[in-house]
Amino acid sequence: MTNPRSTGPADVRNSGELRLTYPVWMFSVADFDGAYRTPDARMALVIRLARESVERDWGGPFGAAVFEADSGRLVSVGVNSVLRLANSLWHAEVMALAMAHTRLKSHTLAAPGLPAHELVTSCEPCAMCLGATLWSGVRTLMCGATRADAEALGFDEGPVTEASYAHLAARGIEIVREIRREDARTVLEAYRARGGVIY
Amino acid sequence: MTNPRSTGPADVRNSGELRLTYPVWMFSVADFDGAYRTPDARMALVIRLARESVERDWGGPFGAAVFEADSGRLVSVGVNSVLRLANSLWHAEVMALAMAHTRLKSHTLAAPGLPAHELVTSCEPCAMCLGATLWSGVRTLMCGATRADAEALGFDEGPVTEASYAHLAARGIEIVREIRREDARTVLEAYRARGGVIY
Repeated sequence: MTNPRSTGPADVRNSGELRLTYPVWMFSVADFDGAYRTPDARMALVIRLARESVERDWGGPFGAAVFEADSGRLVSVGVNSVLRLANSLWHAEVMALAMAHTRLKSHTLAAPGLPAHELVTSCEPCAMCLGATLWSGVRTLMCGATRADAEALGFDEGPVTEASYAHLAARGIEIVREIRREDARTVLEAYRARGGVIY
Repeated sequence: MTNPRSTGPADVRNSGELRLTYPVWMFSVADFDGAYRTPDARMALVIRLARESVERDWGGPFGAAVFEADSGRLVSVGVNSVLRLANSLWHAEVMALAMAHTRLKSHTLAAPGLPAHELVTSCEPCAMCLGATLWSGVRTLMCGATRADAEALGFDEGPVTEASYAHLAARGIEIVREIRREDARTVLEAYRARGGVIY
C-alpha cells in the first residue's frame, strides 16, 4: 500500500452502501413457514408475487423464489425492484438468489450439507439472470411465461439463446419451462393494461 | 391483502437483509477525487484493484470500475467478492455497477442529465456481468484480459459468444477489448500461483 490513504468524496463515503430488504407486504404473500410441494404450487407463488407487484405499483411484472427442491421449503423470494430501488440489478431472479445466499450464508446453494435448490421464475430469465442462475448453485430452473411473452410487451431479454440453456443443462441444471405459462402471461398483460413502464 | 400477515421464521426476519459496502482498503487504491483521463489509466486502476484483491486474499483476481466517459471521474469500483461476502452475485463488474446505481440514485446510468458512463473490467465479463452491463445504461465496455485467459485458469465464463457482444453493440454500447491484456493476465497468473480458489 504505497498511496496516501483517501476516503474519497463525501457522497462516496455516505452513499457507498447498498442495502436490499424485503418489502413488508411480501410477508403477507410468501409463506416461509409452509411447504410448496408441487411445481404448480411453487409457480403459483411466484405468479402471485408478480401480480401483487403490479397491483401495488411496486415494479415490473416478474416474481421469483428459491425452494428446497425436495421438501418445497421456501428459502427466499424476489420481485422486480429495478425502478423502486433504482438499481438495474434487481430483477426478480437476482433478488431471490441474493436473498438465498444471504439466508444460507454460502456463496453456492450447492455447498456440501445443503439440500438441492430450485429457482422458480414467472418468466424465462434475461441474460443476466440466466448467468446468475448458473453461478448460484441451484440444481433446477423452472419458468412460467416465455421470452416471447416478455418481448411481446417490449421487454428486452438480452443475448439468450437455446445454446444458453444448453450450457446450463451441460453443467447439471435441469430446465423446466412453460409451467402455468398462461397464468404468468396474464400478469404481463395486466402490467401493460395499467400502463406499466417498459425499461 | 387477504392473507393473514406472517413475518416468517426468525432467520428470515433477522437475515433478510443484504448489505454491500466497500472494503476500507479500496479507498487507498481508488482515487475518487481525481480523474482517470486515458483508457490506459482506467485499465491500470482496475488491474491494480484485481492485484490488491489477490495480494490481500480478498477474492478472485478481477477488478472493475465505472467512470464518467468524458471527464474520467471515478464513479464506483468493484472487486470480486463472491467468497468474501458469500454471494455468487458479487463479481467485480456487478459490484461496480451496483455501487454506481447506489451513488447516482438512478436505475439507469443513461438517465437524462447524466453524462455518458463507461464500465472498465480487468477481464471480459461472464454471462451474468455481460447482461448486467446491458441493463446498466453504460455506453462503453472496456476489457483487459480475455475470456480465454480466464478459462485457462479454470474459470467458467458461461454462455457468452461473439453474438452476445453484437447484441450489446446493436443497442449502442461501444465494446473495447484487450486493453493492457498482458498486465491483466499477469494478475490471473498470480492468483493461480498463490493457490487461489477456482469456483
